[in-house]
Amino acid sequence: MLNVGLRMPEIQNSKIKNSQLDHQRFMRRALELARNGTALASPNPQVGALLVNATGEIVAEGWHTYDGVKHAEVIAIENAGERARGKTLYLNFEPCSHAGRTPPCVDAVIRAGIARAYVAMKDPNPLVSGRGLDRLRAAGIEVHCGLLEEEARKLNEAFAKYIVQKTPLVTLKAGMTLDGKIAPAYTPSGSDVMLGEEAAGWITSAEAREHVQEMRHAADAILIGVNTVIADNPMLTDRTGLPRRRPLLRVVSDSKLRLPLESRLVKTAKEDLIVFCSFAEENKRRQLEERGIRVEQVRHGTMDGRPDIASVIERLGEMEIASLIIEGGALVNWTALAADVVDKVFLFYAPKILAGTGSVPFASGPGFPRISEAARVRSITLHRFGEDFAVEGYIKDPYENTPCSQA
Amino acid sequence: MLNVGLRMPEIQNSKIKNSQLDHQRFMRRALELARNGTALASPNPQVGALLVNATGEIVAEGWHTYDGVKHAEVIAIENAGERARGKTLYLNFEPCSHAGRTPPCVDAVIRAGIARAYVAMKDPNPLVSGRGLDRLRAAGIEVHCGLLEEEARKLNEAFAKYIVQKTPLVTLKAGMTLDGKIAPAYTPSGSDVMLGEEAAGWITSAEAREHVQEMRHAADAILIGVNTVIADNPMLTDRTGLPRRRPLLRVVSDSKLRLPLESRLVKTAKEDLIVFCSFAEENKRRQLEERGIRVEQVRHGTMDGRPDIASVIERLGEMEIASLIIEGGALVNWTALAADVVDKVFLFYAPKILAGTGSVPFASGPGFPRISEAARVRSITLHRFGEDFAVEGYIKDPYENTPCSQA
Repeated sequence: MLNVGLRMPEIQNSKIKNSQLDHQRFMRRALELARNGTALASPNPQVGALLVNATGEIVAEGWHTYDGVKHAEVIAIENAGERARGKTLYLNFEPCSHAGRTPPCVDAVIRAGIARAYVAMKDPNPLVSGRGLDRLRAAGIEVHCGLLEEEARKLNEAFAKYIVQKTPLVTLKAGMTLDGKIAPAYTPSGSDVMLGEEAAGWITSAEAREHVQEMRHAADAILIGVNTVIADNPMLTDRTGLPRRRPLLRVVSDSKLRLPLESRLVKTAKEDLIVFCSFAEENKRRQLEERGIRVEQVRHGTMDGRPDIASVIERLGEMEIASLIIEGGALVNWTALAADVVDKVFLFYAPKILAGTGSVPFASGPGFPRISEAARVRSITLHRFGEDFAVEGYIKDPYENTPCSQA
Repeated sequence: MLNVGLRMPEIQNSKIKNSQLDHQRFMRRALELARNGTALASPNPQVGALLVNATGEIVAEGWHTYDGVKHAEVIAIENAGERARGKTLYLNFEPCSHAGRTPPCVDAVIRAGIARAYVAMKDPNPLVSGRGLDRLRAAGIEVHCGLLEEEARKLNEAFAKYIVQKTPLVTLKAGMTLDGKIAPAYTPSGSDVMLGEEAAGWITSAEAREHVQEMRHAADAILIGVNTVIADNPMLTDRTGLPRRRPLLRVVSDSKLRLPLESRLVKTAKEDLIVFCSFAEENKRRQLEERGIRVEQVRHGTMDGRPDIASVIERLGEMEIASLIIEGGALVNWTALAADVVDKVFLFYAPKILAGTGSVPFASGPGFPRISEAARVRSITLHRFGEDFAVEGYIKDPYENTPCSQA
């Protein structure tokens, strides 16, 4: 009898836990809806919303796309119609309190008679940042903020950097061997392509390369150096086949416009290729522009004659590019690290060792002279891709200088 | 009623599962006992044994140490005395069927009246390899082999290689940055040591370096090149403070006996330092030998004048060294990889990027010319050590050419 009595609080606890699990499930759904905005919402944040009734049924859902203009919570509310009244709203991002391309969403939420709102994170936009939640609370809505916040912050890390700094989140991506080599000393010839992927120079596995495609799909732009174009002749396209609002902007850093007209990049250019040079040769510029390629001249870097990478990134920000992947080679990687423009790294490792002083290192140049001066990567996560693995980590906090900074 | 009937097999299954969990628990204990033999059993395998009665109580335990001579199962049986009769034996390694330093253990097991035996793995020694289990079965003992086999095989992988090939299991160990650098271009000066670990040149974290100590403790020998002695002046000692039968043998590959007499290695030499040279200068040899240092001359390698690493490893095998850690530098790492003497790698990565063409790569030399010719690391496991991580993987299967090979 005593035992039964003692167990009752446990049962109650377990009910509370279940309820918290339900909230998490609905917020996870909001994040899932938000992900529908991949390549469709930028430079806006990816937001998903759902309305849930008292018995835990989803009444309506919505997610934001830039071209659709309307915000996720407004779409969900419109989908619910009169049924919105008294419901619980799940939203992975704070509703806006300011008029932008749409009127403030908080007004719509209040007008719809929403009873409770679970919000994963505050809007890092200094124009909002808590004001949306305050407005809801002032209207008598029960507001909970912080559910699955970490996941929500990760999803919109590019927006967080872009909205405050007006420059894209810069991810340095590379595929290398366990000893940090991005290519062997030997350059594969055409005939090697017949011998299979490895002879043709692929270092990483098919699974890793598939994830690179996903990364490209989620990015607004991708940058390489002209040396990599000359050496590898890559396409640099998003080959996922998934819809995107703007084509993936392909960016080449090319001080003297050496970009070959017969390269695959130039041949496939469709208003999606931009070349940053520091010394524009007029004839070559004209040849590129005739092919629909944008050529921009920026000042050269302090260390050498190559286009100043910070200026390139600033210009991309002005073009509303919120996320940029740098795909190397060795010299571009070093330039980006040395200029301190890299926010995060995503480094794939194939379980192979190339060794050798002639093989191509991940980052060349003079390098950092001491360990204490090395670029530091924080909050690392390890991923597995088939027989390969990857390290994801941050050199800078994308939320730095936002009102949501955790520092 | 039908439902209840249908559920009965499930209940039975769940009983069987629980029982299987018990077996695992006891085998885990056998492995734990076996680990008491770390640094004490080599070049013999690490073996633990326990006897369990019908109600799941442990009656007696034992583990093997080389100096204790007796095998684990014999110790457990002696500890149990008459109580051994009818009990179940858990053993992470097949009992021997041949007379070595002790009579065959199977005879003791049979004589003790053991009813059942759970054995994790067969003995890779071609003299045994299943014969022990066969002898037990022939005596009417119920024998189960293969419980926690993977863990058991890992524990005795050095023995597996050594017993068949008569050379130690060779682990290439290094601590590096994410871009594969084992040292910066800049060499730290004495005053930097005052500035803390990083300025003094440590790349990896305290947690990683602690694991290196555990690895050293579990190894019979450790090898570096003389260049690393000159550059870093390391101790190369097992500083765990845990007991070991033989001192960790410190091995230096030093073609022309350049090993400085004032190095910490030479100053701390206590019959635990051996120098392999290819060109012995008599005066220097005498100076080293006077300090209790063993000097051996081997033929030089085919690529250069340095001691042939395969010959060095063969000599270590003759000295009953069953496991060897190679701790670099860059040239020794390349030499070992190029000579194809590396069985496994244990590579620590600190979340830092050094970059630069002047910083020291994990492995130098000419390197492998193509990706398809790179050293392949298989069955990788990722470990985390504080903010660092490590990749453990195999270039060769230690069980290759053993009767237990899974290939």
